[in-house]
Amino acid sequence: MSNYKHILLAYDYSAGNDQMASKAQQLAQQHQAKLSIVHVLDNIAMPDVSYGTVINLNQPQEYAALEQQRIKFITLTQTLAIGLSNCWLIWGNPKQEIVELATHEQVDLVIVGSHGRHGLARLLGSTANSVLQYAGCDVLAVRL
Amino acid sequence: MSNYKHILLAYDYSAGNDQMASKAQQLAQQHQAKLSIVHVLDNIAMPDVSYGTVINLNQPQEYAALEQQRIKFITLTQTLAIGLSNCWLIWGNPKQEIVELATHEQVDLVIVGSHGRHGLARLLGSTANSVLQYAGCDVLAVRL
Repeated sequence: MSNYKHILLAYDYSAGNDQMASKAQQLAQQHQAKLSIVHVLDNIAMPDVSYGTVINLNQPQEYAALEQQRIKFITLTQTLAIGLSNCWLIWGNPKQEIVELATHEQVDLVIVGSHGRHGLARLLGSTANSVLQYAGCDVLAVRL
Repeated sequence: MSNYKHILLAYDYSAGNDQMASKAQQLAQQHQAKLSIVHVLDNIAMPDVSYGTVINLNQPQEYAALEQQRIKFITLTQTLAIGLSNCWLIWGNPKQEIVELATHEQVDLVIVGSHGRHGLARLLGSTANSVLQYAGCDVLAVRL
């Protein structure tokens, strides 16, 4: 088989993500692949959109929250020894942004955490399920 | 990280399955893992169930079809050099049987083909999606 050339780790800071990162690093090493990492911010209101979304009345705090996330993410990527040019901090919907980034960056393996979901969350579908369904490449879902 | 110890390849003979098998073999080698293979027969009517399912009026032909599948599967496992004790030919619903076998055999990575599904099939969900949702272990979905 041809080895994976570009692996994308979708990181969301939930429990088990460190183990997932370590699997990603090992796979990248085994396949001599480029390793990229993405974290999608879906819990911070977007402060600077002038049309079509909620107007935020508390912009300075949102910017501060964003800056905090940025610093947290940079610290993580340094720990994982991933160069900044392979690190992506994106604002939006995780399912959509991960698939779009994977396509754009010609990723051939996405590694995503898979939570055992129940009830409503199962009906709505997990990020892992959506990535699997829409990504044009292989997907490794790591059970968290 | 701890390596994978037992990898289960879910094989369905569709296009791209050979490439998936080769990925499974490579991963098993890299992780020094045991490699098992399962094929679930979901297209042959069950001939010998006396209660609760359709009574089949054409049993001899069904048995012949089953025997044919068995021989085809054994040939495949020989090509892949997987010992017979690690080969599973199961009658039933693929999603369910793969998850049950993985649990029973303490598999820590299931490799399953992922078809790009559209329309009704997307609504019904793919085998890969269901395995991901219900398996207690990691799942590698290989895009076919």
